[in-house]
Amino acid sequence: MNEETPQRPSRRRFLSAAASGAALGVTPALAGNPKNLPPNVPEWTRVLGDGVATRPYGNPSKHEAHVIRRDVQWLTASRESSVSFTPLHELDGIITPNGLCFERHHAGIAEIDPEDYRLMVHGLVEKPLIFTLAELKRFPRVNRVYFLECAANSGMEWRGAQLNGCQYTHGMVHCVQYTGVPLSVLLAEAGVKPNAKWLLAEGADSAAMTRSIPLAKALDDCLIAYRMNGEMLRPEQGYPARLVVPGWEGNVWVKWLRRLKLGDEPWFAREETSKYTDLMASGKARQFTFVMDAKSVITSPSPQAPLRATGFTVISGLAWSGRGKVARVDVSLDGGKNWRAAKIDGLQLDKACVRFYAETEWSGGEMLLQSRAIDETGYVQPSKSELRKIRGVNSIYHNNGIQTWLVKADGEVENVEVS
Amino acid sequence: MNEETPQRPSRRRFLSAAASGAALGVTPALAGNPKNLPPNVPEWTRVLGDGVATRPYGNPSKHEAHVIRRDVQWLTASRESSVSFTPLHELDGIITPNGLCFERHHAGIAEIDPEDYRLMVHGLVEKPLIFTLAELKRFPRVNRVYFLECAANSGMEWRGAQLNGCQYTHGMVHCVQYTGVPLSVLLAEAGVKPNAKWLLAEGADSAAMTRSIPLAKALDDCLIAYRMNGEMLRPEQGYPARLVVPGWEGNVWVKWLRRLKLGDEPWFAREETSKYTDLMASGKARQFTFVMDAKSVITSPSPQAPLRATGFTVISGLAWSGRGKVARVDVSLDGGKNWRAAKIDGLQLDKACVRFYAETEWSGGEMLLQSRAIDETGYVQPSKSELRKIRGVNSIYHNNGIQTWLVKADGEVENVEVS
Repeated sequence: MNEETPQRPSRRRFLSAAASGAALGVTPALAGNPKNLPPNVPEWTRVLGDGVATRPYGNPSKHEAHVIRRDVQWLTASRESSVSFTPLHELDGIITPNGLCFERHHAGIAEIDPEDYRLMVHGLVEKPLIFTLAELKRFPRVNRVYFLECAANSGMEWRGAQLNGCQYTHGMVHCVQYTGVPLSVLLAEAGVKPNAKWLLAEGADSAAMTRSIPLAKALDDCLIAYRMNGEMLRPEQGYPARLVVPGWEGNVWVKWLRRLKLGDEPWFAREETSKYTDLMASGKARQFTFVMDAKSVITSPSPQAPLRATGFTVISGLAWSGRGKVARVDVSLDGGKNWRAAKIDGLQLDKACVRFYAETEWSGGEMLLQSRAIDETGYVQPSKSELRKIRGVNSIYHNNGIQTWLVKADGEVENVEVS
Repeated sequence: MNEETPQRPSRRRFLSAAASGAALGVTPALAGNPKNLPPNVPEWTRVLGDGVATRPYGNPSKHEAHVIRRDVQWLTASRESSVSFTPLHELDGIITPNGLCFERHHAGIAEIDPEDYRLMVHGLVEKPLIFTLAELKRFPRVNRVYFLECAANSGMEWRGAQLNGCQYTHGMVHCVQYTGVPLSVLLAEAGVKPNAKWLLAEGADSAAMTRSIPLAKALDDCLIAYRMNGEMLRPEQGYPARLVVPGWEGNVWVKWLRRLKLGDEPWFAREETSKYTDLMASGKARQFTFVMDAKSVITSPSPQAPLRATGFTVISGLAWSGRGKVARVDVSLDGGKNWRAAKIDGLQLDKACVRFYAETEWSGGEMLLQSRAIDETGYVQPSKSELRKIRGVNSIYHNNGIQTWLVKADGEVENVEVS
C-alpha cells in the first residue's frame, strides 16, 4: 500500500483540470496531522462506532454545531415577534434542511395538538366546512418545491450596507418540497359563490396573523401544505398546516392555518395596512405588493465564508423569482462593470431557488462581487441605486437590489455599497 | 363571524370534487372537541408561543415522535452491524428528510473529526494525492437528487411475506439531494493511467468497508459527496464524505470515504465475495450485481398506515429505477389481475424516487393492492414468482418483486403473497 508517496494537490491546477479533464502538476509536500494521514489508520477506524437507531431521529454531527439559525437581538423588541435567519453561507444546492429554515413569528410558535386542529372555510361559499387534519390528509395532494422569502428580507440594506453576512442580509429565504392539497380542490368542496373575489387566511397563533389574498391567486397555485421535505411541517413553520402562496411574500403563507374566509373585497387587516406596505418617498404607500421579484445573493465567498486560499475558486450563490423560473444569473467581479453568465446547476424549477456557480482564479487582489438574476419574464434584478430612485428608502420591504461583497487581499469579505 | 354553521365535509364527495372542480353535498353535524372548533378560539391562540431561535437547529413536533427510524433487533447479531429503516409510510413526496434516512453500518458510525479527515487517491494514477476536506470543498461541485437502496432491501421477502410494514419490507431506501465533486474531476487531478480498469473505495469505519467499482461507472456519474439536502452529511451517512454511485446498490456508496485506489482488476474484497453476491438455486452466485432494478411500493395504505374511513381514498407510493427515469407506475386493486396507470406527481428525475398516486372509492371490501414500476428502458418490475423462477430463493439481495398488501374489510392491512 506504500508503493507511492501521496501528495497534496495544487490549488492552481483545479481550474484547468476541471475544464479539460486533465491535470498538470502537484505541490511537493504533505502537511497536516501525519498520524492520521492515509495510509496510516486513524483512531476512528480502530474502534466500533455507535449502532443503528441510537439516534432514531438523526441530527447533524457535533462538528457542525455552528451551522444554526441565528437571530439579531437588537433588531426586534421581543424574540416572540422576531426573525431567525437561514445560514445560507453553510448550505449548497437548493433544498434547505427543515432544521435550518428561517423563522418569522408575530407571537411565537403556536403549539397545536394535531388531534384538536381544525380548519374552517366560510364566507361567500355554498357550504361552510370544518376540516380535521385527518380529513385534509385524505384529499388529493401534490408535491412542489418552492422558495419562501420574507417581504423584509434584505430590508436593513435599503439604507446602505448594514449587516455583515448573507445569513443576515438574505437569510429570510428557504426552499423546500411541500406536500399539500391544492386550495382550488378544497374551495371546490365548499363551493365558491360567484361574487367572491378575495380570500382571508387566519393563523391560530396568538397574533391571529391575518392576510387578504386575491381569489385568482388562491385558485391558481396555492396549497394547504402539511408536509415539508417529506415529513410533517415543523412547529415553527406552521405545524400542522400552513398556506403556500408560491412566489409571494412570506407573511401571506399563513402558518398554523385555522380559517379561510371568502369575501368580495380585501379585509385591510393590520398586517396589510400598518405593516407589509411599502412607504414611498412621496409619503404614499404601496399596498398588496405580494410578488417577490427576481433576486440573488452570492453565498460563498461572503462575510461569513471568507476565502482561505488563492488559486482556483468557485463563487457560489442562490437566485429566485416570484414570477417563474430563473432564466440566467450573471456574476461580476468588479462591482458591476463587467458581467458574465454563471452556471446554473441542478434543478431549475418554477418559483424555486436555483444554485449558481462561477469559477475564477483568485490571485489575492480585491474583488467587488455581485450577482444579478434574470427571470423567464425578462426581468433583470436591479441595482440598489436603481431601486432607490423609484422607491425611496422609507420602506423595509421588497428590497431585491444587487448585493455587493468586497473580497479583500487577505480573503476577508465585507458588505459594501458601490455607487 | 357566526353567520353560517360550518359543517364537516363528506368523504364521498372528495372524488367528484377533485375531478370536476365542483362539490355535491355535505354531512350534517360537527363532531370532535366543540371547545376548540372554530370560530371558537383554541388555547394555543390565547398564549404567546416560544420565540425565534429557541431551537437554533429545529426538530419535529413532539406530536410526531412516532416518526422515527426503527430497527428489528432479532434481524442481526449486533446493532453495530445492522440496519434501521426509513418510515416510508409516514412520508410523502420524494425527498427524505436527513433525520429519517435509513442506516446500514458494518461496524457502527465512524466519528470523524473533519479537520483530520483525509482522502487518498493512489494506485494506477500519474500522481497519488491526499485531499483534506477543505480542499475537496474547493473543487467544482454538482447537486443531484438520487435514491439510495440497500441491496438487501426487501431481502426477507424472497421466501414469502415476512415483515408487516413497508418501513421494514422497503425502508432501506431514501432519496436526497447530494452535493459533491464529480469523481471524474478528482481522478483527473491524479491522472488515470491507461491500464486502470477498476476503482477500490475504502471507508474509514472500523469494518474498513471496501468495494470494487468499474472505472467506467466511476467516470460516468459518481460523486464524492459531502452534503445531503444542503447541509453536511450526517454522521450515519458517512460524514464528512461518501461515495455516491447513482442507481447502484447502497454498499458501494462507501461512507466515511478514506481511500480510492485504481487498479486493472477487481479486488474481490470480503463484501463482494462472501457478502453482496446472489446465491442462485444452482449453487452458483451472481457477483457484481450492482444495478438496482426498477421497483415500487405502496406506502399508504400499508400495514402501518391502515384505512380509517370508506369513500374517496388516495393510494400512494414510491417508485425508482437504477437504470434511469421511472416512466410509468401501474396500480392493481385485485392482486395483479387488472392494472391501471397511477399519476406520477412532481419531480421525475434520473435515478431518483418518484411519488405516485391512484384514487379510488373504497366501499369497505377487501383489496389486494400492488404496484409495478416501468422504467425508461422499458423494463417492467416483475412479480415475486417470476423473480423466483429465475433466481431461486437463496439470495437475500436484489429482490425487486411486486409487493402485495391485503386491505381487509376493517381497513387493517397485511403483507401477503398472491400466487
